Amino acid sequence: MGEVNVILPENSYQIDIGKNLDDKVRAYFKGAGFSSRALVVTDSNVGRLYENAVEALLRSAGLAAETYRIPPGERSKCLAEAEKIYTRAIANGLDRKSVICALGGGVVGDLAGFVAATYMRGIPYVQMPTSLLAQVDSSVGGKVAVNHPSGKNLIGAFYQPKRVFIDLAFLSTLPPREICTGLGEIVKYGAIYDEAFFAYLEKNGPAILALESQALEHIVTRSVEIKADVVRQDERENGLRRILNFGHTIGHAIEKETQYVRYNHGEAVAIGMAGAAFISRALGLIDDTIVDRLLHLMETLHLPIKAKGCTADAMYKDIFHDKKTVDGQVNWVLLDALGHVTVRRDVPEEIVRDAMARIIE
Amino acid sequence: MGEVNVILPENSYQIDIGKNLDDKVRAYFKGAGFSSRALVVTDSNVGRLYENAVEALLRSAGLAAETYRIPPGERSKCLAEAEKIYTRAIANGLDRKSVICALGGGVVGDLAGFVAATYMRGIPYVQMPTSLLAQVDSSVGGKVAVNHPSGKNLIGAFYQPKRVFIDLAFLSTLPPREICTGLGEIVKYGAIYDEAFFAYLEKNGPAILALESQALEHIVTRSVEIKADVVRQDERENGLRRILNFGHTIGHAIEKETQYVRYNHGEAVAIGMAGAAFISRALGLIDDTIVDRLLHLMETLHLPIKAKGCTADAMYKDIFHDKKTVDGQVNWVLLDALGHVTVRRDVPEEIVRDAMARIIE
Repeated sequence: MGEVNVILPENSYQIDIGKNLDDKVRAYFKGAGFSSRALVVTDSNVGRLYENAVEALLRSAGLAAETYRIPPGERSKCLAEAEKIYTRAIANGLDRKSVICALGGGVVGDLAGFVAATYMRGIPYVQMPTSLLAQVDSSVGGKVAVNHPSGKNLIGAFYQPKRVFIDLAFLSTLPPREICTGLGEIVKYGAIYDEAFFAYLEKNGPAILALESQALEHIVTRSVEIKADVVRQDERENGLRRILNFGHTIGHAIEKETQYVRYNHGEAVAIGMAGAAFISRALGLIDDTIVDRLLHLMETLHLPIKAKGCTADAMYKDIFHDKKTVDGQVNWVLLDALGHVTVRRDVPEEIVRDAMARIIE
Repeated sequence: MGEVNVILPENSYQIDIGKNLDDKVRAYFKGAGFSSRALVVTDSNVGRLYENAVEALLRSAGLAAETYRIPPGERSKCLAEAEKIYTRAIANGLDRKSVICALGGGVVGDLAGFVAATYMRGIPYVQMPTSLLAQVDSSVGGKVAVNHPSGKNLIGAFYQPKRVFIDLAFLSTLPPREICTGLGEIVKYGAIYDEAFFAYLEKNGPAILALESQALEHIVTRSVEIKADVVRQDERENGLRRILNFGHTIGHAIEKETQYVRYNHGEAVAIGMAGAAFISRALGLIDDTIVDRLLHLMETLHLPIKAKGCTADAMYKDIFHDKKTVDGQVNWVLLDALGHVTVRRDVPEEIVRDAMARIIE
């Protein structure tokens, strides 16, 4: 069992990682001082499998827990669905000290977190991420959001959970492609922050793909440690936190160009990391060896490194609509070593276009 | 010209109070470091009078300012209207360093503040309150929100403005009843925090109602100082800030029972303060003299002290749906002296009902 602490000026919290955390979860909710009514937010896929168990667990901790199910998928991450959850929270009598539990993947976590951040100007929420991607990424760091028709995550807040329980047992029911999308972000942590972790991933591909317990616990814990470490230094993305955006500038463009359907997030980020690596090489920041190691690791983990259905022209336009773009300036997160990145604004258009051409199938 | 500073751990800001602040406004926007595109949010009443001047002012400070007009009135303070502003902000190319200016009363300020708090997870906003109520209350303290069909301000955040410009010149075009609603909150500040200020209000009723410059500047500045002082000590309403809720528990019930139409906010709060004073007296916290002084001052300032169209039964039910109610416990803010309040949870039902009966017409 792992334990990671996110240390922040105001809202520090603990993350527990392991298999079957029920006793820890019960003990936490018993002692947390929430008022009696709690709302579990989940989607119908996850809910079918786990909501009864989680409801029972919260009730055994003395909470009057009920569950709200959203339809699965990114389309639920919208203001209209948030409004339905507010309505349910009001009907259930949730007050300012009531807790919302996000039981599900990134969509559930981001949406439930946004509702928690804004219901009565903010009530406590607890993340119980069930997908590998949510476990290593969105459940940690307090970025909550819903989508706008014009773009993902355009409406949101920085709002930290009170606690995160990462139960690896959930992963046993996850479809293989959902494991894959989590691995995209996990590779990112190695690439931007920890060469030794990157080497561990290179060495343990088969164990990871087989979801062997020890490997799984290590890669999730190390990923969460890295994310927590970055968030601790820059909660509101004024500087360092940008490095987590490695692969995301192009990744977001790929998701947009393929209507958020063809590629899931981790896959798009993987292709985006390939693109960022090509840019890094073209600027002379890294050599071929590093590019090759990155591409090879992603292939080993069954991640795509080329995108179908995109054009460089369209992607090039998209990057200026990314919400990390300020006054028309893109902050490119680029590798300058394996395990280290640098942020550059001065990347010539032709280098970006050339890198984009290399990742189009 | 007055200047009040709201000192907070992370987001301190300055409030300027006076007539014709154009030079200060221009100098501020020139030096604030916002990115080039700015959005002024206003309503069609205020916009017709002032948006051209404010747009021109921001342009003279180097910003590409455009205006978004909402329909006037409380019904615009909703998620659907917020969504339209997000859409406009995206279309206008606002990025994370762009500024939103709220030019209007409380509805505009709360809504534009909510959009600023959530657009791209939070961008800067500046309050330019044009109503007396917004000048002394909602523009200071960072409470932003939209309404839910089930109740006011149920969706929101604590999100501080970067700066507040309170230009008293705006008040010259305000309808008399809108002056009245501001006076409700101003009386509240005297009652809960400052007996000398209360006495000033008692003495200067005619000058205040005539909007004489000196009186106006004094009562706005002193009100803002008191609010800033309370917010400084308790930004997120975990304790002290509750005292600002004096008169609001019953006031909210009155607003709800009269469909937010018959009484404006300050009027409902005035009646609510009368109710809270009756409860305070029934508990032996204050004597008749204080109750009489409060009622008399409110009458002098043309504020109502009795509500039409309400029943004690309905109001009694409503107070348990107030968002400040936690686990069914109402935090009653009660006078224990003129200029001082106490928070009590142990008020017997019959005392509350008796007080409610006294304020029903």
